[in-house]
Amino acid sequence: MSTVPSVAVALRNILRVDQVLTEAEELERYSHDDAEWAEYALPLAVVLAESNDDVSRVVKLAAKAGIHVIARGAGTGLSGGANATALSVILSLERMTAVTEINAAERYVVAQAGVLNNDLREAVAEEGLWYPPDPASHRISTIGGNAATNAGGLCCVKYGVTRDYVLGMTVVLADGEIVSLGHRTAKGVTGYDLAGLMVGSEGTLGIITELTLRLLPLAGREQRAVIGYFPSLQTAGDAVADVSRAGIIPSALELIDSMCLKAVDEWQGLGLPENADTLLLATVDETGDTGSALADRIAEIFAAAGSLDVRRGADGSGEGSEIDDLFLARRLAYPALERLGPVLTEDVCVPRGAVPEMLRRIQATAAEHDVVIANIAHAGDGNLHPLIIATEGDDDVKVRAKAAFDQIIRDCLDLGGTVSGEHGVGLLKLDGARDELGPRVLDLHRAIKAAVDPNGILNPGKAF
Amino acid sequence: MSTVPSVAVALRNILRVDQVLTEAEELERYSHDDAEWAEYALPLAVVLAESNDDVSRVVKLAAKAGIHVIARGAGTGLSGGANATALSVILSLERMTAVTEINAAERYVVAQAGVLNNDLREAVAEEGLWYPPDPASHRISTIGGNAATNAGGLCCVKYGVTRDYVLGMTVVLADGEIVSLGHRTAKGVTGYDLAGLMVGSEGTLGIITELTLRLLPLAGREQRAVIGYFPSLQTAGDAVADVSRAGIIPSALELIDSMCLKAVDEWQGLGLPENADTLLLATVDETGDTGSALADRIAEIFAAAGSLDVRRGADGSGEGSEIDDLFLARRLAYPALERLGPVLTEDVCVPRGAVPEMLRRIQATAAEHDVVIANIAHAGDGNLHPLIIATEGDDDVKVRAKAAFDQIIRDCLDLGGTVSGEHGVGLLKLDGARDELGPRVLDLHRAIKAAVDPNGILNPGKAF
Repeated sequence: MSTVPSVAVALRNILRVDQVLTEAEELERYSHDDAEWAEYALPLAVVLAESNDDVSRVVKLAAKAGIHVIARGAGTGLSGGANATALSVILSLERMTAVTEINAAERYVVAQAGVLNNDLREAVAEEGLWYPPDPASHRISTIGGNAATNAGGLCCVKYGVTRDYVLGMTVVLADGEIVSLGHRTAKGVTGYDLAGLMVGSEGTLGIITELTLRLLPLAGREQRAVIGYFPSLQTAGDAVADVSRAGIIPSALELIDSMCLKAVDEWQGLGLPENADTLLLATVDETGDTGSALADRIAEIFAAAGSLDVRRGADGSGEGSEIDDLFLARRLAYPALERLGPVLTEDVCVPRGAVPEMLRRIQATAAEHDVVIANIAHAGDGNLHPLIIATEGDDDVKVRAKAAFDQIIRDCLDLGGTVSGEHGVGLLKLDGARDELGPRVLDLHRAIKAAVDPNGILNPGKAF
Repeated sequence: MSTVPSVAVALRNILRVDQVLTEAEELERYSHDDAEWAEYALPLAVVLAESNDDVSRVVKLAAKAGIHVIARGAGTGLSGGANATALSVILSLERMTAVTEINAAERYVVAQAGVLNNDLREAVAEEGLWYPPDPASHRISTIGGNAATNAGGLCCVKYGVTRDYVLGMTVVLADGEIVSLGHRTAKGVTGYDLAGLMVGSEGTLGIITELTLRLLPLAGREQRAVIGYFPSLQTAGDAVADVSRAGIIPSALELIDSMCLKAVDEWQGLGLPENADTLLLATVDETGDTGSALADRIAEIFAAAGSLDVRRGADGSGEGSEIDDLFLARRLAYPALERLGPVLTEDVCVPRGAVPEMLRRIQATAAEHDVVIANIAHAGDGNLHPLIIATEGDDDVKVRAKAAFDQIIRDCLDLGGTVSGEHGVGLLKLDGARDELGPRVLDLHRAIKAAVDPNGILNPGKAF
């Protein structure tokens, strides 16, 4: 087993010594993302890249040595997409945090892959600009990881996902060459949309080191919130379907159940309400009378669908309000539940009209397999995140949890959905992806992967 | 040369006789799109496909015979992307005009590739839905062609291009297999974005036979127009850059010069104004006070940039108004100029801030090469369409026009632009695309093309 030291030595020859980690504890820490249940091995080494050239040199070395390169942002992924293989180098981009250019007139930002989503949002906000994609992890996840997984978030229901904001990128290919894909102009159709292909490819086709992201003006929106307190998951699901049928596009429409609220409250002590089974948190961001009328209509729909109570948030309601706390609870739900035990995170997307039925089936699945399933959802997109919690921690509950996980995927496909709405396939959804895509489309994936990464060194075994 | 009849005979064996055209006049008519100056040969036959199975059978036959298959919608392309090669079958999708499903609750439409853009818009409007992409050709171009070229249009400045509305598609691959790509849910990240890769690939990776397109609600917008009459291209260009710098996103921001206006007026007799060198046509579609305030700001910017006159259109101004006539003139500019002689259509996209400089260079190019260049532009996107007109029709003017065409491409790249904003590369922009993409990214294109279409039968020689 002379590979381990020789790879580390070779890496230290092309980088600074402190950029190459090999201690057992470090290898363990970088060996997997937040999908605890997905398989992983310890990598041969961890590299902390600081430039495009660093990434290029590492990939060239790995290509020569036949070693896998697995790019990693902050490791907040929920599908095992950044998990290490036994013959891999984990290439962390966390040190590539430069915001290179903010262009207010052209409304784009150029930033390195390791910039945290929220840091990017704050940097562009100072120039009066807005980067919409807002995964719940936005304070801890990187824009490179967001792009590699085509991350969604709360505002996608109106503003779209990461891919909708990627104009161009710098990518290190499987042979270590550094290329630019895409463009910085508002439009462009020169050649294939290879930048778009890289987005969501989970580091299997190239390593995104820098992104040019489209921005919107920060001004011109007014936030109004409508909170519905529902007696059951299904009545909340009905309200979601009704909002869609009414032709309303809210700027967020989130669902959170009492189990999530309780877990957050026990952790953070926010004093969250206990008088409902399920909450819907809706926002609209149109200005003036338009926004006001839209919020009224959502409130009416919530009431008609059976909401026990409907509350309205004032324009630009300050921090610390009940509504802000509820949105904070939504964002904290996942880490709060993780405190209770290993969480197997689902991420399925069904047609909006199928949300009530899907929620019904999730409850049935929880009962059938005797597991605890909490629910958060980007309900307005039909994107549900049943969180299967292994409170006991024994092997049996894990087996039952996995069975529930698989049942939810089958139900999602049965209802015309897709097995991953925004977390990516990684390792956890490989079977589901195969079922959804079918053999010929899988062949197409393999052919493209082989064309772009002929030796299969970039994050092999993930994404499809 | 027994190939010709044998191919036609073989095609007639797998289709109805009337679906296979071989008359010289028919071959000529289907042999090229609207890019008259791009090369083309007569195809071996023209097939009028009526189903996915028809397309599949034709591709299988062509694959076996080693014949090229060139898919074609309405033939309104402006880059030669649908032009025939000598060993090709032109596969027209014009008979595939079914709108299969309009789903108001999920806001999508499923339609065959041969549906005209405008027919689709009208069909979904009856259900209270809106399909935004609106190329100037929307009355005569198909959604399949729009997708194959990732067509833009007037509303892209606010609402994005065709790719932004493609959720999924049915594609016939190079081996004749029929596959589904993408999804019908609001979000989905399962596998690579192969639907997105097909969009804009100009029929070189697969033949799109059916599309699932995302829709928006039709209601909730109010149209307001602001027309600026400018003394020069540059002052109009300045106004465009100023609108962008002010953080305003209009729902359209079109530029049209006096030559275009005059050509349309002589053709259609609309009584268009003659008191300006260049017009900017802006619309905003926000409702109420918000829309009104936005239109005010645009009017102020136009005036400050040197507009001789600024006129405002009332909400929902009826047909036949001056403003409607001006937008009609914008849409008719291309066919109107074609009446004056062969038109070499440019389609470059530069940063919005570079619009004034690019317009200045275009004028200099016209003078230098002694050609007539009229200008229309989706100015708000920086997407310019200089129309080089060979009024004399002799070979010398064509040579000068081509030199001007190349100069404009060089200037566009020099200003940080892309050689095709929305028409596609086809044949006319191959050199420019090669310059823009660079050798390594071109290799990537070739590798993907070879992986997906190993025998190179799908529209070879186009797009990159």
